[in-house]
This record gives sequence, C-alpha cells and structure tokens, in this order.
Amino acid sequence: MPILGPNQYGKAENRVVKITRDGATHHIKDLNVSVSLSGDMDEVHYSGSNATVLPTDTTKNTVYAFAKEYGIESAEQFGIHLARHFVTSQEPIRTARIRIEEYAWERIEHSGEGAHSFVRKGQETRLAQITYDGSAWEVVSGLKDLTVMNSTDSEFWGYVKDKYTTLPEAYDRILATDVSGRWRFNWTDDGQEAPDWELSYAEVKGHLLRAFAETYSLSLQQTLYAMGARIIDHRDEIDEVRFSLPNKHHFLVDLKPFGLKNDTADGAVYLAADRPYGLIEATVLRDGREAKIPADLTNL
Amino acid sequence: MPILGPNQYGKAENRVVKITRDGATHHIKDLNVSVSLSGDMDEVHYSGSNATVLPTDTTKNTVYAFAKEYGIESAEQFGIHLARHFVTSQEPIRTARIRIEEYAWERIEHSGEGAHSFVRKGQETRLAQITYDGSAWEVVSGLKDLTVMNSTDSEFWGYVKDKYTTLPEAYDRILATDVSGRWRFNWTDDGQEAPDWELSYAEVKGHLLRAFAETYSLSLQQTLYAMGARIIDHRDEIDEVRFSLPNKHHFLVDLKPFGLKNDTADGAVYLAADRPYGLIEATVLRDGREAKIPADLTNL
Amino acid sequence: MPILGPNQYGKAENRVVKITRDGATHHIKDLNVSVSLSGDMDEVHYSGSNATVLPTDTTKNTVYAFAKEYGIESAEQFGIHLARHFVTSQEPIRTARIRIEEYAWERIEHSGEGAHSFVRKGQETRLAQITYDGSAWEVVSGLKDLTVMNSTDSEFWGYVKDKYTTLPEAYDRILATDVSGRWRFNWTDDGQEAPDWELSYAEVKGHLLRAFAETYSLSLQQTLYAMGARIIDHRDEIDEVRFSLPNKHHFLVDLKPFGLKNDTADGAVYLAADRPYGLIEATVLRDGREAKIPADLTNL
Amino acid sequence: MPILGPNQYGKAENRVVKITRDGATHHIKDLNVSVSLSGDMDEVHYSGSNATVLPTDTTKNTVYAFAKEYGIESAEQFGIHLARHFVTSQEPIRTARIRIEEYAWERIEHSGEGAHSFVRKGQETRLAQITYDGSAWEVVSGLKDLTVMNSTDSEFWGYVKDKYTTLPEAYDRILATDVSGRWRFNWTDDGQEAPDWELSYAEVKGHLLRAFAETYSLSLQQTLYAMGARIIDHRDEIDEVRFSLPNKHHFLVDLKPFGLKNDTADGAVYLAADRPYGLIEATVLRDGREAKIPADLTNL
Repeated sequence: MPILGPNQYGKAENRVVKITRDGATHHIKDLNVSVSLSGDMDEVHYSGSNATVLPTDTTKNTVYAFAKEYGIESAEQFGIHLARHFVTSQEPIRTARIRIEEYAWERIEHSGEGAHSFVRKGQETRLAQITYDGSAWEVVSGLKDLTVMNSTDSEFWGYVKDKYTTLPEAYDRILATDVSGRWRFNWTDDGQEAPDWELSYAEVKGHLLRAFAETYSLSLQQTLYAMGARIIDHRDEIDEVRFSLPNKHHFLVDLKPFGLKNDTADGAVYLAADRPYGLIEATVLRDGREAKIPADLTNL
Repeated sequence: MPILGPNQYGKAENRVVKITRDGATHHIKDLNVSVSLSGDMDEVHYSGSNATVLPTDTTKNTVYAFAKEYGIESAEQFGIHLARHFVTSQEPIRTARIRIEEYAWERIEHSGEGAHSFVRKGQETRLAQITYDGSAWEVVSGLKDLTVMNSTDSEFWGYVKDKYTTLPEAYDRILATDVSGRWRFNWTDDGQEAPDWELSYAEVKGHLLRAFAETYSLSLQQTLYAMGARIIDHRDEIDEVRFSLPNKHHFLVDLKPFGLKNDTADGAVYLAADRPYGLIEATVLRDGREAKIPADLTNL
Repeated sequence: MPILGPNQYGKAENRVVKITRDGATHHIKDLNVSVSLSGDMDEVHYSGSNATVLPTDTTKNTVYAFAKEYGIESAEQFGIHLARHFVTSQEPIRTARIRIEEYAWERIEHSGEGAHSFVRKGQETRLAQITYDGSAWEVVSGLKDLTVMNSTDSEFWGYVKDKYTTLPEAYDRILATDVSGRWRFNWTDDGQEAPDWELSYAEVKGHLLRAFAETYSLSLQQTLYAMGARIIDHRDEIDEVRFSLPNKHHFLVDLKPFGLKNDTADGAVYLAADRPYGLIEATVLRDGREAKIPADLTNL
Repeated sequence: MPILGPNQYGKAENRVVKITRDGATHHIKDLNVSVSLSGDMDEVHYSGSNATVLPTDTTKNTVYAFAKEYGIESAEQFGIHLARHFVTSQEPIRTARIRIEEYAWERIEHSGEGAHSFVRKGQETRLAQITYDGSAWEVVSGLKDLTVMNSTDSEFWGYVKDKYTTLPEAYDRILATDVSGRWRFNWTDDGQEAPDWELSYAEVKGHLLRAFAETYSLSLQQTLYAMGARIIDHRDEIDEVRFSLPNKHHFLVDLKPFGLKNDTADGAVYLAADRPYGLIEATVLRDGREAKIPADLTNL
C-alpha cells in the first residue's frame, strides 16, 4: 500500500488589518498570514476521518481573534503567538509554521486634523516565517520585490568561453535586480531574550541596500556575497542569509544604424529585458553554522 | 463586403531606460512606451499590401533612437517628440497616440562615492498619453495603483433599501482604494507655452492625496469628487479629471463568538477583501468644458 | 465650481457559480459579474447624500439571488435579467451595464457513477456586456486570451522603410497572437426575437479560428480583417466586430555562431518574446452600420 | 569571515519554441527552460573572479542550439541532454538542474490545406525537473494550474472543535482545487532503460483526474492521498508523488433574506472565494522509499 509521507495543512493568505488608535493618531499593521500545521494526521489521509483535524476555518478565526487579543507588535511576534497556540492547545499538532507577508504604509501629509490617512509604500514585501515544534523556535525573516539598480560600477569579464559563448565582455554595465532574501535568527529558545524584530528588519534592509550600492561589482555573485556578509558582520542575531537575485538585464541598444553613438560614458539608452534573466542564488553563513534555509526561494 | 472601421497599430510596451550622467551623479528615466498609429491603412487590411505600413519594429527603433537624440525630459515631452515625428514624417499616418508608463526610482543613501545607486520607489505608476493629428495636441496624464486608506472619518448610510438590501449602515468604517486617475490638459497648440509636466504631476498627486485625507467621507463618490475638484481648482492647466476607484472593502471581523468586542473606537481588526469590490467611476470638469477621457479606465 | 461629468458605479467581480442538477448529471455555469449603474447621482458626488444610491452590496446580492431565481441560461440572458431589473425597479437609475466573464469547464471522463466532476477548460475567457437604458439594448459579446499560432503561411515585406528601419523582410514566419475580440449584436429591442446566445458564441469562435488558420497572411492586419469579415459574412445577428491582436513575436534564433543552420524549411527554433509586441487593432463592420465598440480593448 | 553556503546560478526562463515539419504537417514543442548550475564557485562570490563561470548567456545559447541539434523529444529528454552537457563539458560544474515548463497546443480544425495551425490548449502547465551530478539522475515531473471540481460527493464533518471553531458541518459541498503536483521517477542510471516520458505524463494526468472524480470525499486530504496512491499503484516508474492542493472554497450563498431556498439538492448558487483558502500538502510514497521532493511547491 502506498505510504503517507510529509504533510501539512492550514489556511493560507488570511488578510488581516489591525488599526491601533492613539487618540486621533492611528497606526496600521497590514498582514497576509498563512498557517501550516502538521502532526498526527495519518487517518485523515487514509480514511477521511477528521477526528484529529482542527479545521482550516478555525485557524483563520484564530488569526483574527489573536490580532484583537494580543495586537500585532511585529509580524514575527504575532507568528510566535499563533504557532505556540496551535502546538500547545491541540495534542495532535506537533509543528506549526506561520508565514506572513507584511505591506508597509506611510502617512499622507496634510493640513487636516488627525493622523489616520495612509498611502501604501509599495516597495518591498516584508516576510516572516515562524516554525515551532513544541521545543525550539526557528524564525526566518526576509523580503521580496525590492528592485535596485547601479547605473555604473559593474563589470563582467574573464569568464569561461566555450563553443556556445558569444557574450562580449562588459566594462561598464547596469546591474539591477529584484532582491528576494531570507535571514535566519539564532534565537531558538523561549529562555533567551528575543531580538527586536522591527529594529532588526530595518537594519538588515539598510545593510543590504548599502552593500549593494557600495560594492564595485565584477559579478552579481560577488555583490550577493557582499550583501549577505554585511548582514552577518553587523547583526549578531542572524546566522544565515540567503538571496535569490535575478539579473535584470539592461541591454545597451545598438544605435549605430541610426548614426548615433550610445556610449555609457555619455549617458546611454538601455532596453530593460523581461526574459530570460540570469538567476543567482546563494547562502551566506556565520562561520561554523549550518545552512537551513531551503535552496529555492522561487519556483524557477 | 464587410467594411473596415476604426483601426490603429504600433509597437506596444517598449521598455526604455535612459541614464543621464552629471559626473558621478546619475539620473534615471524608466519608461514603458506604446505607439499607436492610424491613417491610410485600408489596403493592408483588405489585401495585405504593406505599402503604407511603417513596421512596428521601426516604431520601436524610433523610441530608442529618440531617447538618445532628445533625451527624456518628461514622459509627456518625450511622447510629443515621438507623436510629431510619426505624423509629420510619414504621409499615410494621420494620427499618432503615444502611451507611456513611468516607474519612479529614489536614491539609495550610502557612504560610498558617487550617486548612481537607486531603489525603485514602487508606489504608483505614472501615466501619460499624447495624441497628435497634425494640428492639435491632446495630453492626458495620470497614475494607477496608488493605494490609500483612511482608517476613520468615513460613513455610509441613508441609502436606498430594496428587497435585496441587507447591508447595515456604517458610522465609522475604513475607506481604502487603489487610485486610478487621468487628467486632461488644456494645452492643445504648439503656439501656447506647454505646462511644466514634471511640476504639474507632482502637484496633482499632492492635491489628490490631500483631498483624500482631508475629506470626511459620506460616500466614496463624495471623496472622488473632492479629489477631482481640488485638482481643477488648483491647477489651471487641467480641464478634466477622471477617476476609477475600487472600494477596497475592509470588513470588521465578527469576534463575538470568541467573547471579544471588535469596536472601531478601540482599534479594530479588519478582513481585507479581494473580490467583489465596489467600483466608483466619475469625471470632474472645469465648468464649460467637455468630457473627453473615455469612461472605462479598467476592463471590468 | 467644478462640474460632475459622466459617472457610473456598482459592484465589480461577483464570482458566481451555479450548479444545475439533472439527477446525477450536473451542469455548471461559472461567471464573474460586474455591475455598473448610472443615472440621477449628482448629490452623492456633491454632498455625499446617498438618497438615490442603491448600495453596491445590494447589486451583489441581486446577482446571487437572480442566479437562483432565474438560473443562468447564458451569460447574455443573465445580464439582460439583471440590467432590466436595475433600470426598471429604481427610478434614479437610467442605465445599467452588466459585464460578465465566463469560464468554461469540461467533464472528467471516469468509470464512477454520476457526472458531476469537471476540469476547467482553461482556454479563452468568454465575455459579455449588456447595456440597457430603459428603451434599447446593446449586447456585445467577446472573448480574450485565446492564443493561436500558424507555424508557416505568414510573410511580411514590401513595407515603408525610413531611416529607423532595420527589419529584414520575412517570407516564412510564425504568426501568433492572443485573440481579444468583441462583437456587437443587432438585437436591440425586446420585441425582436433574441439570438441563440450559446450557439452564436460557438459559431463565432469557430469562424474566427478557421479564418485565422485558412488565411495565407501578408500582414496581421490582413488576418484580422479576414477573421472579422468571416464573422460578418456568416452571422447575420452581428453587425460589428473589433479585434485587438498582439503580434506575439517568435524570432528565428541565429545559430550560425554555433555552426548550425536554422532554416524554417527544416523545422526551426524560435525565441518566443514577451515585450515589446506589435499591437494591431481594428473594427470590421457590416456595410452601412456604425462602429460603436470602444477603440481600446486593452489599456496599452 | 562569513562563509559561502549552497549556491547555484544560470539563465532562467528561456522561452524556446521548436517546430518540426513533416511535409505540410507541423508539430510544436513550446517550453520555458531554466538552467541552474553549481560546483566550484567560491571565488566568484568572494572576489568576483569569473574564471570558473560559464556565463548565463552561454547557457541560454546552449538551450537554443540543443533544440536544433537534438530536437525536443520530450521536456525530460531535452533536460537530460542539457544537464549532461553542462556537467561533463565544464570541469568546475558538478551539478546541473534543468527546470522546464511546457505549454500544450492543439490543432485548429479547418478545411484549408496543411496542418500548421494551432490553438493553445490553455489547461495545466506541464513541469519537468532534471538534476544530474555526474553519476545519478533525478527526474521529477509534474503539473500546475489544473483546476478541477466535484459538484457533489464531498462532505466535511467530525472535526476537532475548539473555542475558535464556528464552521458548520457540511454533508454536500463543492470540492474544487488547482492541482499542483510533482512525481519522482525511480530511473536514476543511464544503464537502465528510461521511461517513456510522454506516455507516463499522459497516464499520470489521467489517473489523478479519475481518482479525483471517483473518490467520495470526507476531506481534501483523503482525496489527495487517493490521487497519489492511484499513481503509485498504476505507474511502476514512479516512487513518490507530492501534491499541493488549495481548497478553493465555494460558499453556499445565504438567500433566505430574499425568500429563496438555496439547497444543494435543487442545484445551488455558490460564491467562489479567492482568499483565504485551505492549503493541503502531502507526499505519497511507494512503500520502502524515501521522500525527496521538497515540502513547499508554493511560497505560501
């Protein structure tokens, strides 16, 4: 008989918005929360008995109720509350994994009263994944869709040439990517003091942006490593960083047929290409630590 | 025999990035340019004769060549160069319409040398449509995907109730929308001085955001009108504004089954819904002017 | 004071699925219904008075209730019921426009009992737009995202060459497009017998596919006209057809650097490009009729 | 110093179309090919030296050249050619992973000559992943976006109820999902005869559809297991199957306020919801084999 292997279930993409009022000044947390539970779930697969199954609808209700009961201090802290609840309140559930997307808003400046008007920042999506098995925590934070560009200080040459190589070497190119990154905290234990999740996120984002900007790049791999290493060097709470960086090609357009020079030194015109794109993926680790973030942050 | 009606053709979605260098300080214009031409095109439809057809590939080349020859001062100015060229250089082409999307970037602050590192702002997409028929210009600018929210100061009551009405009246609700707007300039003639397109865009965006924030709302229609009227009142160069505003519903979650009160006054928890959504669309005009922006900014 | 121009409102994207049971054999209609109403709506814009406003939530309820009360014989017939109801039951509403997307399902063949298992066909999305102003009907049906390809029998040459033209002429190319089409019925009056909407759709789809396949193409414009003309010639109930056809470029890859010939006659390798793409748009009319379908079926 | 962990790179999303001509009858293979290489790549990360780096542009060229040189018999066979080439031709490359999406086309029936007109089938996307480390092969095939529905023969009751549970039990509900599945072959060795990849795919798809249709379902988990077990039971070449199945909720609409009964037995009206959705994920294994397909087929 075929055997059941690893499995998990839950309610995905619960869109929860929490407003906190401080008089006429409001604060907003805007999350997309996905719950995955696993444990003693053989029978529901083999026979359809739901006797150990907490309905996904209940996990959705719990998300909304906890947003009210506990508030949302940070995505990570909210996920910790939820994961602990599922594992400790339901005997058949051994492991809970909470994944959260967070959307940032900024205030609209205006001359009216109050401070309860917002415009979505629209830049990166913040990510958090909290996993709990009843004894140890794993928290992986991250971001996706942060698009960055250096319009110079990037070269690419000295590579292997085989019979299928036609690419000319480049000594002044655009380097652009949509940053998708995840970083794992070394906090695993309720006994330890937890990181300041909000501060940590802001600092990591700042470090990766500055490392991108300040690295004179001979390859996107080098830039990726510089971004990861800067985080490991500056943030003691983080042991591992993984990036998946598409090389968003900007091709220098050949304008010679039209009697035009298109030199980078003069300010050039580029074609921003869609597909295909280079895809550079790597993990950077604190020395002595082990890689645990899965290899594929995308499905391609 | 079936008759050919209105028609147009061209190359859509030419992604052009122009870097301007001012020493180590770079500037970026990042556009998506679509060309539509029309004129004496009966034969290509009836018989396949391409004798009057400038290839769409040529229109693409022209976009890139003009970005180098003329630079990109603004999306509108760039579209004007292109539209004039197609209409005046090709006898069969009577009308050219250029549509442009523009993506904003901001600088990455860092301690390295130079200023050539950017992060995509990621907020709204700026829009421009330039149409020229050889004698008069029509310029319609706009934006899409600017997501805004008031977390209070919105009510909805006093509406018609028929046998299918179940909605309870609301005295304190979230009002959120993705602004899609277009505004038409009254500049039509090369003899007139053209508006300052960059300044005008910044000012219009500011006005619509502040009008959204400062309007105590009894309906999204009222807020829409306030946004349009503020633009007409403050910007003499604009005669018409049209908005398409989805009412992005944020439903107050019923937490009573869990023994929790979820009152707005205490800071509430909302479910951000996807579909369906209210869709409110209207034009606001300077008195005495005619509506010319098409009714549908979306396809739904 | 700024003046209110054309306006409309309603609930967009109501996802309604209707199952009809005929014993153990089930039938499915799967629609996405958007309602737009207009009429006496000045006050809601100027002052926020909702006294003439039927809530969009009510229009949503009406969609679901009518699906039960009247069933869904066809998207067009369902839209007619809805439009008539809104215009005739609410004095302030003068015009109703219903837009519907329909998703097709086919049966899963299996050896079990009953016939209530389906797999989504996944090809084109069917479209219907029904507009009623209390006296005359306008019905426009259509489809989008029907991707077709001829792997030969397409040429492109004899076109205008200007200083920006570099495209080589092509004598055997791939012609591929995502068909987006709309066709307007000449039925406008309750007194006339209405078309058989389901049959008409199937026939029109068949004609446009066969016209695409059977036309030896010298330009995509010629193919477009052939598709429209075939419909006008064969379907008396239709007076106007409009197509928006992206030219989905398939570029012959240059394999000479690798010592390979890539001739079409031998079966060639192509790069399927994303952007930019040619965009060909035109209306085909029954002689003597007027074009009423809006020019832009896309926003680019 | 921070340490480099697992890494890979290559060109993603190479869109290759191969036409094969058999006189006037053409055949088409339409793929999206992503290449990921790993091996001796420390220096490119640490110092930017590209001395061991075959450019991603070269991997793109190789995809197109191989499509011509070897043709595309099946996605799996094509991936095997590519993976073998990269690992055996470049000393620094130790492992190659090729991921392929395949889009199906069907012929347009018409009365013209030849058979070179196609319409994209538009149903599921076929998937293949081929990994080679110089000694053993791992081939995982699959599909995504195959949307299926049973309009009856699904119940859900007898589940755990905690303080956050409000869901009523259901005795006749719609069960619908977008199937995302992967299956691993036990072929690992060039010495063994390889499976008939095209036949295997068609058979697996048939089995999973029929298992979905024929299973009277007490939970989506039970249906998932039935789908996987059917494949393991019928296809000796496959040792492991993993599914990720969103529970696409179709809620019975409450029409009582409008005086209407909405009973499933009479044919009911449902609201097809977007988010949130249940997400059920599990692996089914041949007895004695180990799970190797990664747990997350989605990113949520």
